[in-house]
Amino acid sequence: MKAEIVSIGTEILLGDILDTNTHYIAQRLPALGIDLYFTHQVGDNLERLTDTLRLAWSRSDLILCTGGLGPTEDDVTREAIARVLGETPYVDPRLEAELRAWFDRRGAPMPERNLKQAWLTPSTRPIPNPRGTAPGWWSEKDGRIIIAMPGPPAEMTRMWDKEVAPRLRERATGAVIISHTVKTAGIGEGAVDEMVSHLLKSTNPTIGVYAKADGVHLRITAKAATVEEAEALIRPVQEEVERILGTAVWGRDDDTFEAVIGRMLRERGLTLGTMESATGGLLASTITDVPGSSDYFRGGLVAYATDLKIAWGVDPAVVAQHGVISPECAKEMARAAREQVRADLGVGITGVAGPDEQEGKPVGTMHVAVHDGTEAHVISYQFAQGREAAKRRAVTVALQLIRRVLTLTPGPSPAERERGGRRPG
Amino acid sequence: MKAEIVSIGTEILLGDILDTNTHYIAQRLPALGIDLYFTHQVGDNLERLTDTLRLAWSRSDLILCTGGLGPTEDDVTREAIARVLGETPYVDPRLEAELRAWFDRRGAPMPERNLKQAWLTPSTRPIPNPRGTAPGWWSEKDGRIIIAMPGPPAEMTRMWDKEVAPRLRERATGAVIISHTVKTAGIGEGAVDEMVSHLLKSTNPTIGVYAKADGVHLRITAKAATVEEAEALIRPVQEEVERILGTAVWGRDDDTFEAVIGRMLRERGLTLGTMESATGGLLASTITDVPGSSDYFRGGLVAYATDLKIAWGVDPAVVAQHGVISPECAKEMARAAREQVRADLGVGITGVAGPDEQEGKPVGTMHVAVHDGTEAHVISYQFAQGREAAKRRAVTVALQLIRRVLTLTPGPSPAERERGGRRPG
Repeated sequence: MKAEIVSIGTEILLGDILDTNTHYIAQRLPALGIDLYFTHQVGDNLERLTDTLRLAWSRSDLILCTGGLGPTEDDVTREAIARVLGETPYVDPRLEAELRAWFDRRGAPMPERNLKQAWLTPSTRPIPNPRGTAPGWWSEKDGRIIIAMPGPPAEMTRMWDKEVAPRLRERATGAVIISHTVKTAGIGEGAVDEMVSHLLKSTNPTIGVYAKADGVHLRITAKAATVEEAEALIRPVQEEVERILGTAVWGRDDDTFEAVIGRMLRERGLTLGTMESATGGLLASTITDVPGSSDYFRGGLVAYATDLKIAWGVDPAVVAQHGVISPECAKEMARAAREQVRADLGVGITGVAGPDEQEGKPVGTMHVAVHDGTEAHVISYQFAQGREAAKRRAVTVALQLIRRVLTLTPGPSPAERERGGRRPG
Repeated sequence: MKAEIVSIGTEILLGDILDTNTHYIAQRLPALGIDLYFTHQVGDNLERLTDTLRLAWSRSDLILCTGGLGPTEDDVTREAIARVLGETPYVDPRLEAELRAWFDRRGAPMPERNLKQAWLTPSTRPIPNPRGTAPGWWSEKDGRIIIAMPGPPAEMTRMWDKEVAPRLRERATGAVIISHTVKTAGIGEGAVDEMVSHLLKSTNPTIGVYAKADGVHLRITAKAATVEEAEALIRPVQEEVERILGTAVWGRDDDTFEAVIGRMLRERGLTLGTMESATGGLLASTITDVPGSSDYFRGGLVAYATDLKIAWGVDPAVVAQHGVISPECAKEMARAAREQVRADLGVGITGVAGPDEQEGKPVGTMHVAVHDGTEAHVISYQFAQGREAAKRRAVTVALQLIRRVLTLTPGPSPAERERGGRRPG
């Protein structure tokens, strides 16, 4: 099945909004066995939209539209589709009743121009949209399908996931394409490439090696008649890849570092605390993006001012001797974090986020430490790609280091757990 | 001048990468007086790309391509453009010498397939690309222009900013469109609409009112022959809008709340500290995204566990009576934050980020307080749109409240400043 996507809205062409709908749909078509050949963005202009839809209709089996289903004169998607179908829209009594009921529930009279959201054509079936007033359109004629979904992403994604994708899955007969990702840390791209070189020649599944912000990813992609067959092609290769890469593998597919270390902490009954300077709280915020993180994250300190670092337990002699931008200070912060929040592991981050150097140390200098109760592990590096990127990078390094320390550190013994874990104090 | 954008790459159609180039260019065309009528995404397929370019060539004055300029067989943008122009590419000796020199500097022999990056056609001039090996193509024929830029955003944006946009600015003769945004807080969309209703009928400039995450924005857009004339149309209307909305206006164009409160704090010589629970450090991180924030942000506490809130100064009696999810606890946290970090203003945030309710209080409940040294101001609300959205929303509310308190609070007197500001202790 050959598909095209048409994203509709003048505000997209003016650059006022970023069209995320096209990307959302494009990502989901390979697993349905649907080939996407073209995408278009067109303004709210009946002639230009009709031209685009006619072209798509002439060469593709499936046209997926988003946007232009609102109640105003600008919204011409229905009119354009009706023209391509060569049909005249009519007001569907059931849709009209639903629409009026929607306004009634909100105690507002329905503006008469909204009536166009109750239109259908002979070849068109409505697609439910519980998140808005515009039902989608599913039109079929001459062996071709044209689908119109609303533009607001919250409405579009629900309609795609719940209504459109399931029906297309039954209809599409092409080969499906499925990918799985294996995520590693601590090994360079070249080294990973070498370790799996004998697998890289494979044509189905294929393997790609990519350097990403959180480590080197391997993407294993298979093409087959069904999802099950594609998964069966991927499975042995993925197992082999994970066997070769061993403990460097930290996650799969949508796994994030913060979720993975969260699982490790929870399994071992360990808790975590932080003291951040350069990252200003971004590490604590990232850790607490994970639902249920209160089980293992006790709290953190954002010690931006030097006197606060000292007030919160950093040895002033260390600051005097090495400065606050030093591995020694990061270690002190990790130790102090652990003690201040009474956690098993403490993390310390200090560095120069920029834009100006500090203590004569260049922008992008970062020191990240994790204290496990016995000793502090520290990583120092430089990353000068701007303030926000430097903060994000330091958070990733900290999460990697937490994982490494957790991999080295056994959990508490059952006896220790009974005594209340390995918490100090 | 009528334009189309063609973004080229199979990885875009597979949803592997998000096409940000189209949005980048689309945003910048209105100020050049260029009308964008269509955009397309096409895979690395010579036939389909040529069809798309031929269609664009038949109806537009300017075609802007990105992607497909690499050295591999997949990269067919040059071939497709040559077909549309009806010309045969040749290797340009100067480009070839530059390309070989580029590889020489890196001590690597040039793969012969890279030679296609030294191609030109009779109607084509190269566009310099210091960030990569692929020069762009600027082709003119029969009164039409077709421009090809590399796909990697770092290469594309530099080529656009430094080479393509300046030359198009000289050529484009259409009306330019310029917009300015006035950002407000504390007044609803309907109320803003009413306050400026007499201006909303204006056709040049036009005014749009938009509810955004950080308040209601007014967008004033003018169309004129030059940027200067458009600015002159906007200026009096913007002044009128800002006069009417008064202190509700907190910023313009690219201003962020965190930058605006940073400026206010610095001007008054005041400092800030935070104690966060539900937002987990995101407020501190957002405040420290602003370069130079160490001038006024002293530090913060992420008091995730209840015993840490109390250890850091929250009155246990308040927790016992009202729970930690309460306006009273938020106020205590703001007061304690101020004292713990020795700042002029303290912020406290507590709430239920989800996914589970807490203390019987529903997901999305949030209490945000700011203590100014004399009293605590608090805002309570509910926002149940998911964990990360709830965190972001609470940060915005906190920044709004800080601004409101700063608007009410005069800065320290010169005498106070001499005594070291209004810091306690």
